Amino acid sequence: MRKITIVCVGSLKEDFWKKAVLEYQKRLSKFCDLEICEIAEAKLSSSPNQKEIEQALENEAQKILEKTKGKKTFCFCIEGKPVSSQEFSKLLTENTNQGEICFVVGSSFGLFENLKSKFEKLSFGKITLPHQLFRVVLMEQIYRGFMIFSGSTYHK
Amino acid sequence: MRKITIVCVGSLKEDFWKKAVLEYQKRLSKFCDLEICEIAEAKLSSSPNQKEIEQALENEAQKILEKTKGKKTFCFCIEGKPVSSQEFSKLLTENTNQGEICFVVGSSFGLFENLKSKFEKLSFGKITLPHQLFRVVLMEQIYRGFMIFSGSTYHK
Repeated sequence: MRKITIVCVGSLKEDFWKKAVLEYQKRLSKFCDLEICEIAEAKLSSSPNQKEIEQALENEAQKILEKTKGKKTFCFCIEGKPVSSQEFSKLLTENTNQGEICFVVGSSFGLFENLKSKFEKLSFGKITLPHQLFRVVLMEQIYRGFMIFSGSTYHK
Repeated sequence: MRKITIVCVGSLKEDFWKKAVLEYQKRLSKFCDLEICEIAEAKLSSSPNQKEIEQALENEAQKILEKTKGKKTFCFCIEGKPVSSQEFSKLLTENTNQGEICFVVGSSFGLFENLKSKFEKLSFGKITLPHQLFRVVLMEQIYRGFMIFSGSTYHK
């Protein structure tokens, strides 16, 4: 079975996001073995300076690297390559044919610059979303990707 | 107080989307008077042909026009102008200074072509989202737009 890991920084707080994620996990179980791997968001002071933020992102980056080691990995950032749902479907199904893949979703401060350069960068759009909502959007796009691939009318 | 109407086709089915929308309605009540105006999705057969879909979209379009009459209106579609959260914030706050504005979100079949040509077309990205999830994303972007305008650290 295709294997996908979503490596994300920070956890889901709101109950409605947890339920949305559960719903897509249930739907995706038909198509892939999906693991969600949460990395703790590095603790910051209430108004962190740039150096503090960089340090936090670097700490998170080390943990992300451990989880993605040896796997084809894509990360999401605004400057990434914009993809449509069809393009994402192709990327998803072609790459999971060849082995396990990872998607990395950063914290509200994003991802460490040096880390991003190691992965293929993707973007779903120019807008910034909260990381919790982004996780839901990503899971819906993975589900849509498989539905497109299977020729379902889910995607019109 | 600034007045915004979201005109959307179809209703929210899942409880988690309803709760997410309620959360953003609560947060937005500080910034604007937000009305959500749901238009019933036109009924279609189980595998509708193109003509049937066009007819449904045209029927929905008439109802949308009634709700948006006399108001500055923006609609969302993939071919719309791509906006970042900062650009959307500017558009939102400048236009609500001048009067009531409307955002139109179509059904899973989109919006009638002739209708789209009457409005300013916007896009949050190349991906297709379910209309229920898109409504949540739009509300979050409206909230983010006001937070950017007010100089909050919500948007980093």
